[in-house]
Amino acid sequence: MAVPDHVRDPSEIYRQSFATIRAEADLGRFSAPLADVVIRLIHACGMTDLAGDIVASADLVEAGRAALMAGAPVICDVEMVRHGVIARLMPKANPVICLLGDPRVADLATAKATTRSAAQVDLWSEHMAGAVIAIGNAPTALFRLLELIDAGAPRPAVILGLPVGFVGAAESKDELIANPRGVSYLAVRGRRGGSAMASAAVNALAAGLEGHG
Amino acid sequence: MAVPDHVRDPSEIYRQSFATIRAEADLGRFSAPLADVVIRLIHACGMTDLAGDIVASADLVEAGRAALMAGAPVICDVEMVRHGVIARLMPKANPVICLLGDPRVADLATAKATTRSAAQVDLWSEHMAGAVIAIGNAPTALFRLLELIDAGAPRPAVILGLPVGFVGAAESKDELIANPRGVSYLAVRGRRGGSAMASAAVNALAAGLEGHG
Repeated sequence: MAVPDHVRDPSEIYRQSFATIRAEADLGRFSAPLADVVIRLIHACGMTDLAGDIVASADLVEAGRAALMAGAPVICDVEMVRHGVIARLMPKANPVICLLGDPRVADLATAKATTRSAAQVDLWSEHMAGAVIAIGNAPTALFRLLELIDAGAPRPAVILGLPVGFVGAAESKDELIANPRGVSYLAVRGRRGGSAMASAAVNALAAGLEGHG
Repeated sequence: MAVPDHVRDPSEIYRQSFATIRAEADLGRFSAPLADVVIRLIHACGMTDLAGDIVASADLVEAGRAALMAGAPVICDVEMVRHGVIARLMPKANPVICLLGDPRVADLATAKATTRSAAQVDLWSEHMAGAVIAIGNAPTALFRLLELIDAGAPRPAVILGLPVGFVGAAESKDELIANPRGVSYLAVRGRRGGSAMASAAVNALAAGLEGHG
Protein backbone atom coordinates (compact mmCIF):
# COMPACT_ATOMS: atom_id res chain seq x y z
CA MET A 1 0.00 0.00 0.00
CA ALA A 2 1.61 3.22 -1.14
CA VAL A 3 0.19 6.55 -2.12
CA PRO A 4 0.67 7.09 -5.87
CA ASP A 5 3.07 9.66 -7.21
CA HIS A 6 1.38 13.00 -7.83
CA VAL A 7 2.03 16.65 -8.66
CA ARG A 8 2.80 18.71 -5.55
CA ASP A 9 4.05 21.99 -6.98
CA PRO A 10 1.27 24.59 -6.62
CA SER A 11 2.13 26.52 -9.79
CA GLU A 12 2.26 23.34 -11.83
CA ILE A 13 -1.09 22.22 -10.40
CA TYR A 14 -2.66 25.51 -11.49
CA ARG A 15 -0.98 25.34 -14.89
CA GLN A 16 -2.25 21.83 -15.57
CA SER A 17 -5.70 22.65 -14.24
CA PHE A 18 -6.15 25.71 -16.42
CA ALA A 19 -4.77 23.83 -19.45
CA THR A 20 -7.30 21.04 -18.95
CA ILE A 21 -10.13 23.53 -18.62
CA ARG A 22 -9.07 25.37 -21.79
CA ALA A 23 -8.88 22.07 -23.66
CA GLU A 24 -12.27 20.78 -22.53
CA ALA A 25 -14.53 23.75 -21.92
CA ASP A 26 -16.38 25.60 -24.65
CA LEU A 27 -15.15 29.15 -24.04
CA GLY A 28 -15.71 30.45 -27.56
CA ARG A 29 -18.63 32.74 -26.78
CA PHE A 30 -16.80 34.64 -24.00
CA SER A 31 -14.52 37.66 -24.33
CA ALA A 32 -10.95 36.98 -23.21
CA PRO A 33 -11.37 38.70 -19.83
CA LEU A 34 -14.67 36.95 -19.18
CA ALA A 35 -13.18 33.62 -20.23
CA ASP A 36 -10.67 34.01 -17.39
CA VAL A 37 -13.54 34.40 -14.93
CA VAL A 38 -15.25 31.35 -16.40
CA ILE A 39 -12.04 29.33 -16.09
CA ARG A 40 -11.79 30.22 -12.41
CA LEU A 41 -15.41 29.24 -11.83
CA ILE A 42 -14.81 25.89 -13.51
CA HIS A 43 -11.62 25.43 -11.52
CA ALA A 44 -13.61 25.90 -8.31
CA CYS A 45 -16.13 23.15 -9.09
CA GLY A 46 -14.33 20.68 -11.35
CA MET A 47 -16.99 20.77 -14.08
CA THR A 48 -16.03 21.98 -17.53
CA ASP A 49 -19.64 21.90 -18.76
CA LEU A 50 -20.42 24.74 -16.37
CA ALA A 51 -19.38 27.11 -19.17
CA GLY A 52 -22.67 26.42 -20.94
CA ASP A 53 -24.69 27.77 -18.00
CA ILE A 54 -22.71 30.94 -17.33
CA VAL A 55 -24.31 34.24 -18.35
CA ALA A 56 -22.80 37.66 -17.73
CA SER A 57 -23.30 41.23 -18.81
CA ALA A 58 -20.80 42.39 -21.42
CA ASP A 59 -19.19 44.87 -19.04
CA LEU A 60 -18.90 42.51 -16.07
CA VAL A 61 -15.11 42.34 -15.81
CA GLU A 62 -14.60 46.03 -16.53
CA ALA A 63 -17.25 47.07 -14.00
CA GLY A 64 -15.99 44.64 -11.36
CA ARG A 65 -12.36 45.72 -11.72
CA ALA A 66 -13.26 49.39 -11.67
CA ALA A 67 -15.29 48.91 -8.50
CA LEU A 68 -12.50 47.04 -6.74
CA MET A 69 -9.91 49.60 -7.87
CA ALA A 70 -12.15 52.30 -6.43
CA GLY A 71 -11.99 50.53 -3.07
CA ALA A 72 -15.51 49.09 -3.18
CA PRO A 73 -16.44 46.56 -0.51
CA VAL A 74 -17.21 42.96 -1.37
CA ILE A 75 -20.48 41.90 0.26
CA CYS A 76 -21.01 38.15 0.72
CA ASP A 77 -24.17 36.30 1.72
CA VAL A 78 -22.36 33.65 3.80
CA GLU A 79 -19.11 33.31 5.71
CA MET A 80 -17.98 30.54 3.34
CA VAL A 81 -17.90 33.03 0.47
CA ARG A 82 -16.11 35.59 2.61
CA HIS A 83 -13.44 33.09 3.52
CA GLY A 84 -12.98 32.03 -0.09
CA VAL A 85 -12.12 35.57 -1.15
CA ILE A 86 -8.35 35.88 -1.19
CA ALA A 87 -7.74 39.07 0.75
CA ARG A 88 -4.28 39.74 -0.65
CA LEU A 89 -5.68 39.83 -4.20
CA MET A 90 -7.96 42.75 -3.41
CA PRO A 91 -6.32 45.78 -5.05
CA LYS A 92 -7.28 48.34 -2.38
CA ALA A 93 -7.43 46.11 0.68
CA ASN A 94 -11.17 46.16 -0.01
CA PRO A 95 -13.33 45.23 2.96
CA VAL A 96 -14.95 41.83 2.57
CA ILE A 97 -18.21 41.83 4.50
CA CYS A 98 -20.74 39.23 5.60
CA LEU A 99 -23.59 40.33 7.88
CA LEU A 100 -25.27 36.94 8.34
CA GLY A 101 -23.91 36.77 11.87
CA ASP A 102 -25.05 40.28 12.77
CA PRO A 103 -27.02 40.10 16.03
CA ARG A 104 -29.96 41.93 14.45
CA VAL A 105 -30.51 39.31 11.74
CA ALA A 106 -32.39 36.62 13.69
CA ASP A 107 -35.09 39.01 14.90
CA LEU A 108 -35.33 40.61 11.49
CA ALA A 109 -35.85 37.21 9.87
CA THR A 110 -38.61 36.33 12.33
CA ALA A 111 -40.29 39.71 11.89
CA LYS A 112 -40.25 39.42 8.10
CA ALA A 113 -41.02 35.67 7.99
CA THR A 114 -38.04 35.00 5.79
CA THR A 115 -34.62 33.38 5.93
CA ARG A 116 -31.76 34.89 7.89
CA SER A 117 -29.89 35.06 4.58
CA ALA A 118 -32.56 37.30 3.10
CA ALA A 119 -33.05 39.34 6.27
CA GLN A 120 -29.38 40.34 6.39
CA VAL A 121 -29.72 41.95 2.94
CA ASP A 122 -31.77 44.70 4.57
CA LEU A 123 -28.62 45.57 6.53
CA TRP A 124 -26.45 45.86 3.42
CA SER A 125 -27.75 49.30 2.36
CA GLU A 126 -25.02 51.40 3.90
CA HIS A 127 -22.33 49.35 2.08
CA MET A 128 -24.16 48.72 -1.17
CA ALA A 129 -23.50 51.76 -3.37
CA GLY A 130 -20.91 50.67 -5.93
CA ALA A 131 -20.20 47.39 -4.14
CA VAL A 132 -19.34 43.97 -5.52
CA ILE A 133 -21.99 41.59 -4.22
CA ALA A 134 -21.31 37.85 -4.17
CA ILE A 135 -24.22 35.53 -3.42
CA GLY A 136 -23.10 31.92 -3.24
CA ASN A 137 -25.72 30.27 -1.12
CA ALA A 138 -29.21 31.64 -0.66
CA PRO A 139 -31.75 32.25 -3.45
CA THR A 140 -33.80 34.28 -0.96
CA ALA A 141 -30.86 36.67 -0.53
CA LEU A 142 -30.67 37.27 -4.29
CA PHE A 143 -34.44 37.77 -4.53
CA ARG A 144 -34.33 40.23 -1.62
CA LEU A 145 -31.43 42.15 -3.15
CA LEU A 146 -33.38 42.60 -6.39
CA GLU A 147 -36.48 43.70 -4.45
CA LEU A 148 -34.46 46.33 -2.58
CA ILE A 149 -32.91 47.65 -5.78
CA ASP A 150 -36.39 47.92 -7.31
CA ALA A 151 -37.44 49.83 -4.19
CA GLY A 152 -34.62 52.33 -4.65
CA ALA A 153 -31.78 50.95 -2.56
CA PRO A 154 -28.23 52.09 -3.42
CA ARG A 155 -27.06 50.37 -6.58
CA PRO A 156 -24.15 47.93 -6.44
CA ALA A 157 -21.57 47.89 -9.24
CA VAL A 158 -21.73 44.15 -9.78
CA ILE A 159 -23.95 41.25 -8.69
CA LEU A 160 -22.37 37.81 -8.77
CA GLY A 161 -25.49 35.67 -8.53
CA LEU A 162 -24.51 32.12 -7.69
CA PRO A 163 -27.07 30.73 -5.24
CA VAL A 164 -27.37 26.97 -5.33
CA GLY A 165 -30.12 24.44 -4.88
CA PHE A 166 -33.62 23.27 -5.54
CA VAL A 167 -35.95 26.03 -4.35
CA GLY A 168 -35.60 29.42 -5.96
CA ALA A 169 -32.01 29.16 -7.16
CA ALA A 170 -32.85 28.87 -10.85
CA GLU A 171 -35.73 31.35 -10.57
CA SER A 172 -33.75 34.03 -8.73
CA LYS A 173 -30.94 33.84 -11.28
CA ASP A 174 -33.40 33.96 -14.17
CA GLU A 175 -34.76 37.19 -12.69
CA LEU A 176 -31.26 38.61 -12.34
CA ILE A 177 -30.51 37.77 -15.96
CA ALA A 178 -33.85 38.88 -17.44
CA ASN A 179 -33.95 42.24 -15.67
CA PRO A 180 -30.45 43.35 -14.95
CA ARG A 181 -31.66 46.66 -13.51
CA GLY A 182 -28.64 48.37 -15.00
CA VAL A 183 -26.29 46.50 -12.67
CA SER A 184 -23.53 44.35 -14.17
CA TYR A 185 -24.01 40.72 -13.29
CA LEU A 186 -22.81 37.17 -13.63
CA ALA A 187 -24.97 34.12 -13.01
CA VAL A 188 -24.96 30.38 -13.48
CA ARG A 189 -28.32 29.29 -14.83
CA GLY A 190 -30.12 26.49 -13.05
CA ARG A 191 -29.49 24.74 -9.76
CA ARG A 192 -25.70 24.86 -9.72
CA GLY A 193 -23.79 27.55 -7.89
CA GLY A 194 -22.24 27.76 -4.47
CA SER A 195 -19.86 29.58 -2.25
CA ALA A 196 -16.72 28.29 -3.98
CA MET A 197 -17.92 29.65 -7.32
CA ALA A 198 -18.95 32.96 -5.76
CA SER A 199 -15.58 33.57 -4.15
CA ALA A 200 -13.80 32.37 -7.29
CA ALA A 201 -15.71 35.00 -9.26
CA VAL A 202 -14.59 37.73 -6.86
CA ASN A 203 -10.99 36.53 -7.02
CA ALA A 204 -11.16 36.47 -10.80
CA LEU A 205 -12.44 40.05 -10.95
CA ALA A 206 -9.57 41.09 -8.71
CA ALA A 207 -6.77 39.20 -10.40
CA GLY A 208 -7.85 37.27 -13.50
CA LEU A 209 -6.02 33.95 -13.47
CA GLU A 210 -3.15 35.31 -11.40
CA GLY A 211 -2.83 35.04 -7.65
CA HIS A 212 -3.52 31.62 -6.26
CA GLY A 213 -5.02 30.58 -2.97
CA MET B 1 -40.29 44.88 -13.21
CA ALA B 2 -41.12 42.93 -10.09
CA VAL B 3 -39.38 40.10 -8.33
CA PRO B 4 -41.46 36.92 -8.67
CA ASP B 5 -43.20 35.40 -5.71
CA HIS B 6 -41.10 32.78 -3.99
CA VAL B 7 -40.84 30.61 -0.88
CA ARG B 8 -39.26 32.44 2.05
CA ASP B 9 -39.91 30.13 5.00
CA PRO B 10 -36.66 28.33 5.84
CA SER B 11 -38.31 25.09 7.00
CA GLU B 12 -40.46 24.95 3.88
CA ILE B 13 -37.42 25.56 1.69
CA TYR B 14 -35.63 22.64 3.32
CA ARG B 15 -38.72 20.44 3.09
CA GLN B 16 -39.19 21.12 -0.62
CA SER B 17 -35.48 20.72 -1.30
CA PHE B 18 -35.22 17.34 0.40
CA ALA B 19 -38.45 16.17 -1.28
CA THR B 20 -37.07 17.08 -4.71
CA ILE B 21 -33.83 15.27 -3.98
CA ARG B 22 -35.65 12.12 -2.79
CA ALA B 23 -37.81 12.21 -5.92
CA GLU B 24 -34.94 12.65 -8.36
CA ALA B 25 -31.84 11.04 -6.87
CA ASP B 26 -31.13 7.34 -7.02
CA LEU B 27 -30.65 6.58 -3.33
CA GLY B 28 -31.57 2.89 -3.48
CA ARG B 29 -28.08 1.53 -2.83
CA PHE B 30 -27.54 3.51 0.38
CA SER B 31 -28.58 2.55 3.92
CA ALA B 32 -31.11 4.95 5.44
CA PRO B 33 -28.52 6.79 7.59
CA LEU B 34 -26.12 7.07 4.66
CA ALA B 35 -28.91 8.26 2.37
CA ASP B 36 -29.39 11.22 4.71
CA VAL B 37 -25.73 12.13 4.27
CA VAL B 38 -26.07 11.79 0.50
CA ILE B 39 -29.15 14.03 0.53
CA ARG B 40 -27.23 16.72 2.39
CA LEU B 41 -24.34 16.49 -0.08
CA ILE B 42 -26.75 16.86 -2.99
CA HIS B 43 -28.47 19.76 -1.24
CA ALA B 44 -25.11 21.52 -0.98
CA CYS B 45 -24.36 21.35 -4.70
CA GLY B 46 -27.74 21.23 -6.45
CA MET B 47 -26.92 18.08 -8.44
CA THR B 48 -29.04 14.98 -7.90
CA ASP B 49 -26.76 12.85 -10.09
CA LEU B 50 -24.03 13.24 -7.50
CA ALA B 51 -25.48 10.16 -5.79
CA GLY B 52 -23.94 7.98 -8.46
CA ASP B 53 -20.43 9.11 -7.57
CA ILE B 54 -20.67 8.82 -3.79
CA VAL B 55 -18.82 5.94 -2.16
CA ALA B 56 -18.61 5.33 1.58
CA SER B 57 -17.60 2.60 3.97
CA ALA B 58 -20.55 0.73 5.46
CA ASP B 59 -19.84 2.02 8.95
CA LEU B 60 -19.37 5.67 7.97
CA VAL B 61 -22.33 7.18 9.79
CA GLU B 62 -21.91 5.03 12.89
CA ALA B 63 -18.19 5.79 13.10
CA GLY B 64 -18.67 9.47 12.45
CA ARG B 65 -21.41 9.87 15.05
CA ALA B 66 -19.48 7.89 17.64
CA ALA B 67 -16.42 10.07 17.09
CA LEU B 68 -18.39 13.29 17.42
CA MET B 69 -20.22 12.01 20.51
CA ALA B 70 -16.82 11.21 22.00
CA GLY B 71 -15.85 14.85 21.53
CA ALA B 72 -13.53 14.31 18.57
CA PRO B 73 -12.27 17.38 16.76
CA VAL B 74 -13.25 18.12 13.16
CA ILE B 75 -10.15 18.90 11.11
CA CYS B 76 -10.71 20.85 7.86
CA ASP B 77 -8.27 21.52 5.04
CA VAL B 78 -9.52 25.06 4.34
CA GLU B 79 -11.30 27.84 6.18
CA MET B 80 -14.28 27.56 3.85
CA VAL B 81 -14.97 24.05 5.13
CA ARG B 82 -14.52 25.17 8.72
CA HIS B 83 -17.03 27.98 8.25
CA GLY B 84 -19.54 25.62 6.62
CA VAL B 85 -19.60 23.38 9.67
CA ILE B 86 -22.58 24.44 11.81
CA ALA B 87 -21.06 24.73 15.27
CA ARG B 88 -24.33 24.40 17.15
CA LEU B 89 -24.95 20.98 15.58
CA MET B 90 -21.76 19.52 17.04
CA PRO B 91 -22.91 17.29 19.91
CA LYS B 92 -20.00 17.98 22.26
CA ALA B 93 -19.07 21.48 21.19
CA ASN B 94 -16.39 19.68 19.18
CA PRO B 95 -13.49 21.87 18.15
CA VAL B 96 -13.46 22.61 14.41
CA ILE B 97 -9.88 23.14 13.32
CA CYS B 98 -8.12 24.45 10.23
CA LEU B 99 -4.36 24.89 10.32
CA LEU B 100 -3.87 26.31 6.82
CA GLY B 101 -3.24 29.74 8.33
CA ASP B 102 -0.74 28.46 10.89
CA PRO B 103 2.40 30.60 10.64
CA ARG B 104 4.59 27.49 10.25
CA VAL B 105 2.81 26.31 7.10
CA ALA B 106 4.43 28.55 4.48
CA ASP B 107 7.98 27.56 5.42
CA LEU B 108 6.99 23.93 5.70
CA ALA B 109 5.50 24.01 2.20
CA THR B 110 8.67 25.56 0.78
CA ALA B 111 10.89 23.08 2.58
CA LYS B 112 8.87 20.10 1.33
CA ALA B 113 8.24 21.52 -2.15
CA THR B 114 4.52 21.00 -1.82
CA THR B 115 1.32 22.98 -1.40
CA ARG B 116 0.48 24.80 1.81
CA SER B 117 -2.62 22.62 1.96
CA ALA B 118 -0.49 19.47 2.08
CA ALA B 119 2.13 20.97 4.38
CA GLN B 120 -0.43 21.78 7.06
CA VAL B 121 -1.36 18.10 7.27
CA ASP B 122 1.99 17.49 8.95
CA LEU B 123 0.71 19.72 11.76
CA TRP B 124 -2.50 17.72 12.25
CA SER B 125 -0.88 14.83 14.14
CA GLU B 126 -1.62 16.00 17.65
CA HIS B 127 -5.34 16.32 16.81
CA MET B 128 -5.68 13.34 14.49
CA ALA B 129 -6.35 10.33 16.72
CA GLY B 130 -10.06 9.56 16.42
CA ALA B 131 -10.79 12.80 14.56
CA VAL B 132 -13.28 13.53 11.81
CA ILE B 133 -11.26 14.86 8.87
CA ALA B 134 -13.00 16.88 6.15
CA ILE B 135 -11.03 17.63 2.99
CA GLY B 136 -13.00 19.83 0.62
CA ASN B 137 -10.37 21.51 -1.46
CA ALA B 138 -6.88 20.12 -1.94
CA PRO B 139 -6.05 16.72 -3.43
CA THR B 140 -2.50 17.14 -2.13
CA ALA B 141 -3.87 17.33 1.42
CA LEU B 142 -5.71 14.03 1.00
CA PHE B 143 -2.64 12.38 -0.55
CA ARG B 144 -0.49 13.65 2.33
CA LEU B 145 -2.95 12.43 4.93
CA LEU B 146 -2.86 8.94 3.46
CA GLU B 147 0.94 9.02 3.35
CA LEU B 148 1.11 9.97 7.01
CA ILE B 149 -1.31 7.22 8.01
CA ASP B 150 0.82 4.72 6.10
CA ALA B 151 3.83 6.06 7.98
CA GLY B 152 2.17 5.40 11.32
CA ALA B 153 0.45 8.70 12.16
CA PRO B 154 -2.46 8.60 14.65
CA ARG B 155 -5.55 7.18 12.95
CA PRO B 156 -8.59 9.39 12.43
CA ALA B 157 -12.08 7.92 12.92
CA VAL B 158 -13.44 9.17 9.60
CA ILE B 159 -12.04 10.71 6.42
CA LEU B 160 -14.46 12.77 4.34
CA GLY B 161 -12.51 12.93 1.09
CA LEU B 162 -14.03 15.63 -1.12
CA PRO B 163 -11.20 17.46 -2.84
CA VAL B 164 -12.21 19.04 -6.13
CA GLY B 165 -10.57 19.71 -9.45
CA PHE B 166 -8.48 18.58 -12.34
CA VAL B 167 -5.13 17.53 -10.91
CA GLY B 168 -5.11 14.72 -8.38
CA ALA B 169 -8.68 15.02 -7.13
CA ALA B 170 -9.95 11.84 -8.78
CA GLU B 171 -6.71 10.00 -8.09
CA SER B 172 -6.50 10.90 -4.41
CA LYS B 173 -10.09 9.80 -3.86
CA ASP B 174 -9.53 6.56 -5.78
CA GLU B 175 -6.65 5.84 -3.40
CA LEU B 176 -8.83 6.58 -0.38
CA ILE B 177 -11.53 4.23 -1.69
CA ALA B 178 -9.21 1.43 -2.83
CA ASN B 179 -7.16 1.31 0.36
CA PRO B 180 -9.27 2.52 3.22
CA ARG B 181 -6.50 1.73 5.72
CA GLY B 182 -9.11 0.68 8.23
CA VAL B 183 -10.45 4.23 8.48
CA SER B 184 -14.11 4.88 7.67
CA TYR B 185 -14.48 7.16 4.71
CA LEU B 186 -16.74 8.92 2.29
CA ALA B 187 -15.65 10.16 -1.13
CA VAL B 188 -17.12 11.53 -4.35
CA ARG B 189 -15.44 9.84 -7.28
CA GLY B 190 -14.01 12.04 -9.99
CA ARG B 191 -13.44 15.75 -10.23
CA ARG B 192 -16.42 16.95 -8.23
CA GLY B 193 -16.19 17.81 -4.55
CA GLY B 194 -15.65 21.03 -2.69
CA SER B 195 -15.88 22.79 0.61
CA ALA B 196 -19.68 22.97 0.63
CA MET B 197 -19.94 19.21 0.24
CA ALA B 198 -17.28 18.62 2.87
CA SER B 199 -18.97 20.75 5.49
CA ALA B 200 -22.37 19.28 4.55
CA ALA B 201 -20.96 15.82 5.22
CA VAL B 202 -19.78 16.89 8.68
CA ASN B 203 -23.14 18.49 9.44
CA ALA B 204 -24.92 15.33 8.28
CA LEU B 205 -22.81 13.12 10.56
CA ALA B 206 -23.64 15.41 13.45
CA ALA B 207 -27.37 15.79 12.83
CA GLY B 208 -28.66 13.81 9.85
CA LEU B 209 -31.19 15.96 8.04
CA GLU B 210 -32.04 17.97 11.17
CA GLY B 211 -30.49 21.27 12.09
CA HIS B 212 -30.35 23.78 9.32
CA GLY B 213 -27.84 26.48 8.61
